[in-house]
Amino acid sequence: MTTTWITLTTDFGEDSPYVAAMKGVILSVNPDVRLLDLSHQIPPQDIRHAAFFLAAAIPYFPSSVLHVVVVDPAVGSERAVLYVEVEGHRLLAPDNGCWTTLPSASSPRVICLAEPRFWRQRVSATFHGRDIFAPAAGHLSRGLDPRELGPQTDSWVRLPSFPAQQTGDRITGEVLFVDRFGNLLTNIPAECVGKPRAVLVGDKEVTRWVRTYADAAPGTLVALTGSSGHVEIALCQGNAARRLGAAVGTPVCVLLT
Amino acid sequence: MTTTWITLTTDFGEDSPYVAAMKGVILSVNPDVRLLDLSHQIPPQDIRHAAFFLAAAIPYFPSSVLHVVVVDPAVGSERAVLYVEVEGHRLLAPDNGCWTTLPSASSPRVICLAEPRFWRQRVSATFHGRDIFAPAAGHLSRGLDPRELGPQTDSWVRLPSFPAQQTGDRITGEVLFVDRFGNLLTNIPAECVGKPRAVLVGDKEVTRWVRTYADAAPGTLVALTGSSGHVEIALCQGNAARRLGAAVGTPVCVLLT
Amino acid sequence: MTTTWITLTTDFGEDSPYVAAMKGVILSVNPDVRLLDLSHQIPPQDIRHAAFFLAAAIPYFPSSVLHVVVVDPAVGSERAVLYVEVEGHRLLAPDNGCWTTLPSASSPRVICLAEPRFWRQRVSATFHGRDIFAPAAGHLSRGLDPRELGPQTDSWVRLPSFPAQQTGDRITGEVLFVDRFGNLLTNIPAECVGKPRAVLVGDKEVTRWVRTYADAAPGTLVALTGSSGHVEIALCQGNAARRLGAAVGTPVCVLLT
Repeated sequence: MTTTWITLTTDFGEDSPYVAAMKGVILSVNPDVRLLDLSHQIPPQDIRHAAFFLAAAIPYFPSSVLHVVVVDPAVGSERAVLYVEVEGHRLLAPDNGCWTTLPSASSPRVICLAEPRFWRQRVSATFHGRDIFAPAAGHLSRGLDPRELGPQTDSWVRLPSFPAQQTGDRITGEVLFVDRFGNLLTNIPAECVGKPRAVLVGDKEVTRWVRTYADAAPGTLVALTGSSGHVEIALCQGNAARRLGAAVGTPVCVLLT
Repeated sequence: MTTTWITLTTDFGEDSPYVAAMKGVILSVNPDVRLLDLSHQIPPQDIRHAAFFLAAAIPYFPSSVLHVVVVDPAVGSERAVLYVEVEGHRLLAPDNGCWTTLPSASSPRVICLAEPRFWRQRVSATFHGRDIFAPAAGHLSRGLDPRELGPQTDSWVRLPSFPAQQTGDRITGEVLFVDRFGNLLTNIPAECVGKPRAVLVGDKEVTRWVRTYADAAPGTLVALTGSSGHVEIALCQGNAARRLGAAVGTPVCVLLT
Repeated sequence: MTTTWITLTTDFGEDSPYVAAMKGVILSVNPDVRLLDLSHQIPPQDIRHAAFFLAAAIPYFPSSVLHVVVVDPAVGSERAVLYVEVEGHRLLAPDNGCWTTLPSASSPRVICLAEPRFWRQRVSATFHGRDIFAPAAGHLSRGLDPRELGPQTDSWVRLPSFPAQQTGDRITGEVLFVDRFGNLLTNIPAECVGKPRAVLVGDKEVTRWVRTYADAAPGTLVALTGSSGHVEIALCQGNAARRLGAAVGTPVCVLLT
C-alpha cells in the first residue's frame, strides 16, 4: 500500500533544524509524499503529553496516513523503534508507550525496526528521527511491506493509566491536559457524572455546570462536557489553569447529585 | 468547483491536539486536498488580531483557495458558522466579524451553515472546528455547491472600525498590530502624511522619517511607509514596541508639515 | 526544470500575517507547487542562527527543492537578493551570508535578482519576502531558467567563520547553537577529540563522555558526539544551557588525553 500522507509529531520545537532535516530525508526517499505537521511543540521529552496528544488526534485521521512520532528521551539506548498498526492507524514511534493510549478494541500489530538497509547509512546515537524514523517512513510511504522492517513482536512498553475511580457519590480523577486557553481536560468520563453538585479542582470548588463556554458570564468558573467526552473545567473568557493554580496531575473530584 | 488548497487559521496553538484533529477530519472527507497552515498563534479568543491577520494575508491568495478560520470564543452558542465569498476569496468563519475587515468593493455572499449532513455525526458543544468547520471544508473542497450548506443571509456581525481622523495638521489613529520585530503597524494611510514633521506614539515623539529600516543607524526610532501602505514605527535593529512601551490600541498622531 | 517543492525559512514568527502573505503570492504564481515550512522561528534578524539552521538542514534535501530564506534585516537597502546553487541545492536568500556556511566542495553559482518582471508589480521597501522572493520562487518552480532572473555574480557577502583551534592538548571553540532541550552544539569536530579528559564550558568542567543521552543517570552533565559530528554538551533529562548558564558564543575547551 502506498501512502499519500506522512504526519510529523515531535518535541523538537521550531527554531532547531531537526524537523527540517527529517523532512529533507523523507523527501529524499519519496519526493511524491505529502507532509503534514501535527505538532513540534510537545514539551521536551514529555511522553505523557505526547500520549494525550496522539490519543486525541490520530483517531480522526483516515487509515492510509502514516504518523511519525519522535518524542524520544531514550534515543540511542536499547529502546526499540516500532512500526505499529492499531485500529487501522499506522505509526512509527519509539518504544516508550507514547502510542499505547490510542483507543484499541483489537490487538495492535507491532514490528521492531531491525533492518538497517531502510535507515540512513550512518546512524548517529542521538538523532534517530533523521537517521531511522525518516528514511523508514519514506520507504513505507512508497509501499514497502512493513514485514521487511523487522520481526513482529508482542512485547512493548505500555504507559500506565490511572482511570477515574468512583466511591459512593464521588468520582476522583485528575487533570490530564491543559490547553492554550487554560481549559483543564480531565480523565473523568462525562457520561458518568450527569449534572453534578460540584467539581473540586485541588481544594477549589466549581459549582456551575454548563453546556458550552459562552453559557456563563465572563469570569465565571464552569465545568462542562469537553469535546472528547470528559469533564472539563474552564473560565469563561479567561484562563482556568491560572485562576485555579492547576496543572497536569492536579486531582479533580466530582460530587454527584 | 473543486478546491486544491484549504488553509487553516486558528487560536489553538501547537501543543494541543485540536489542529491535528481538524486536519484528520478534513483528510477523512477529502484525502486529495492540500493543507496549508496560515497561523495557529492568533492570541486566544482575540477576534481583532484575527481580523487584522486575515485582512493582511487573504488578499494575496488566488481565489480557488478555501480559508478555514477558527477563532471562536462563542463556540456552541447561537452564533452562526458562515460560508463567505468576498472579492473572490472563500472562507468558513464564525459569525463574529473576524472576516469583515477584508477589503470588499462589492457585497459579499454569505451563507449560514445549517445542514448537519455535512457535519460530523456527533457535534460537540465546544469544538465546532473539528465537528462543523472541518467536515464542511472537506465537502466544499470536493466541489459541494455552497448553497447546499444552508440559506443565504444578509445579516452578520460587523467588526467596528475606527479609521484615522484628520483635524488641521494632525492625523490621529492607533496601533493596530505589533509584529514579532516590535514594529508598530498603524491605521494611518501613509499616502495622507507625506513626510511629516513628527509622529507621536502615546506621548513619545519620533522625528525621523525613512524609506526602510536600514536607512538609519541601529537604535534609531524611525517612522516609514509599511508594507501595507500605512504608517509604521520601527526601531532600527531593535524592538520599537518595547522601547516605546506601545501596544495594540496605543494612540498615534502624525504632525503634518 | 520544474520544482515540486518550495520550502520557507524566515524570522517572521507565526502570529504575524507575513508568512501567510508569502504563501498566497507563491500560490498565485504556481498553484501546483507544494509548500513546506522549515522554520519561522529564526530569532528576529539573527543571520548567524539562520546560517546554522540552513547548514544543518538543507544538505538532507533532494536537489530539486527550492529553498526560500527570508532573514533580512537590510531589506530595502542596496543589499542584493540572490539565487544560489550550491552542491546541487537551490536557494533564494538575501545577500547577507546566511547561506555561505552550507558545505560546498565546488564553486557555487550565484545570480543577482535584477528583473522586476518576476516581482510583484509594486515592490514595498520593507517586505521583499512578499514582493520579490515569493513571486520569483513561484516562477522558478514553474521552470523559469534562473538566468532570466538577473546577471551572474562572483561577489557576495561571506559570513566569517571561527573554526576550533588546537594548541597542545587543548582544542578551543565555542557554542554555535542551543537547541530546545538545552543541548549545547559546538564547532569542535568530535573526530579530533577521541575520548577527552574533560570539556570546559566557560569555567565549568564536564568530565563524563558518553555515547548518547541515556547513557548516564538523570541530572548528569555529559559530553558526546552530536548528530552533526561535533562535540555536544547535554544534561541527562535536563537542560544543560540553563544548568551551565551557557549560550551561543560561550567558549568551549576540550582537554585531550
